Amino acid sequence: MNILISGMGLIGGSLCKALKKYTEHKVIGYDINSDVEKLALSENSIDQIFNGDYSNIDIIIICMYPEICEKYFYSIISKIEKYTLVTDVCGIKGEMSERLHQSAISHGVEYIPIHPMAGKEVGGYSNSSADLYIRANMVITPFEDSDRKKTEILSKISENIGFRKIVITTPQEHDTMIAYTSQLAHIVSSAYVKSPSLDKECGFSGGSFQDMTRIATMNEDMWTSLFMQNRKNLESELSILIENLEKYRETLQNNDSEEMKRLIKEGTNLKLENLKKRIGEPN
Amino acid sequence: MNILISGMGLIGGSLCKALKKYTEHKVIGYDINSDVEKLALSENSIDQIFNGDYSNIDIIIICMYPEICEKYFYSIISKIEKYTLVTDVCGIKGEMSERLHQSAISHGVEYIPIHPMAGKEVGGYSNSSADLYIRANMVITPFEDSDRKKTEILSKISENIGFRKIVITTPQEHDTMIAYTSQLAHIVSSAYVKSPSLDKECGFSGGSFQDMTRIATMNEDMWTSLFMQNRKNLESELSILIENLEKYRETLQNNDSEEMKRLIKEGTNLKLENLKKRIGEPN
Repeated sequence: MNILISGMGLIGGSLCKALKKYTEHKVIGYDINSDVEKLALSENSIDQIFNGDYSNIDIIIICMYPEICEKYFYSIISKIEKYTLVTDVCGIKGEMSERLHQSAISHGVEYIPIHPMAGKEVGGYSNSSADLYIRANMVITPFEDSDRKKTEILSKISENIGFRKIVITTPQEHDTMIAYTSQLAHIVSSAYVKSPSLDKECGFSGGSFQDMTRIATMNEDMWTSLFMQNRKNLESELSILIENLEKYRETLQNNDSEEMKRLIKEGTNLKLENLKKRIGEPN
Repeated sequence: MNILISGMGLIGGSLCKALKKYTEHKVIGYDINSDVEKLALSENSIDQIFNGDYSNIDIIIICMYPEICEKYFYSIISKIEKYTLVTDVCGIKGEMSERLHQSAISHGVEYIPIHPMAGKEVGGYSNSSADLYIRANMVITPFEDSDRKKTEILSKISENIGFRKIVITTPQEHDTMIAYTSQLAHIVSSAYVKSPSLDKECGFSGGSFQDMTRIATMNEDMWTSLFMQNRKNLESELSILIENLEKYRETLQNNDSEEMKRLIKEGTNLKLENLKKRIGEPN
């Protein structure tokens, strides 16, 4: 198949490299930065720089920040062939994907959103890697009227480039879960570095501190957009976390060792159950 | 030197293995579980099982949970030679180390606490490793009247078994910092798994979720003891974190994108500054 990757940052660049490394598909690359396009071609991360011709393109994978993705989508939707499958990798689905869905329907084009659950704390093509998706999770969120065969194509390609678990779900369920598994973690990490103690931590930390603060560096435009589009779900998860943290605080204030043991044991048991479920699962 | 490791769990077992792998010191092992002693000897993790004779022992490193460590310390302090340096690896120093210090003085023995900043989310001798301390931080907390040469000996051994940064500080400063770099992280991890969403996370998570919840499994007796002995510092850090998390929540509630960008950018800048300071630092 001919696959156009639009936007070759960390996610798009890694898709290009992975498709080249693990499949026989023809990879066409587009980026707003022509230096990235040239570099990707010279590194054989793509077969061809996109020349503006949408004919003979089987799949377009849009790998841009949500707002830019939406604008780009509207700018190309009337130019593409009816057989072209369009997808995007945005970290939030919900309302935006419904708007794109309606736009796709009105142009007789199939659009099925995806979300590769992989990333790094650093972005851009220069940090992309052919193996970013090895053993990662892929979430595909077709609509009720989506073509099942097209969903299967996306699923198959995902498998081929290394994804181990592929979840097919609704955009709504995706957004609910992502608020917990990804967005909340980013907020915690961002808040964690705001203690005055940060300044003196060198020499006093081990792996826990690193794990807790690894993702504190975020692109504020992209993440604000992701957070705000999912703010009800995220606010709900954040409230649950704050409420739980307050229980530990109260227990410390009360100097209540028995209750602290119970709180810790409860967390241990939940995590152990979670680990059991994940045996053989990615990550 | 002849070094007695008392308690061969994750930390003590790793010390035995590291001393054997990277130094010429004679390693004598003691554990309440004689099967662990025999296994360690058979694996050459120690040179000898402790036979109850405290003569000719240069250093005793107590690697037990805080409360057990304190009882053990009192039980041996009158039996050991005046030249024997005693240390312990407890994750909290403060009041307990001052009590042990006074006891050591009254017996004419030198006691200098240490805290190797390394660990795993799983404990016990079976999870110990000779390379646990490679590139890790070591904190040594001598008292005002401590023998500098003895502190240097501990520092040198730490270097020899792989520690990269060795911090000499007071027990009070250690406890203040550890509340932030380690204890708070454990509470966050423990609280994070208490969302009802945990049950459905499989397939929806990437590295962020794993990093955030890795240390949620804790031995509740040890960690309760560590938390409670440091509860003022820990409560203070926990309050700072909750207050910061509330800012993100309020911003979501207000649908205030500009403020969210500012909050995220602030976190990014703090983390980047922190990373700059750590260039060439462990972890």
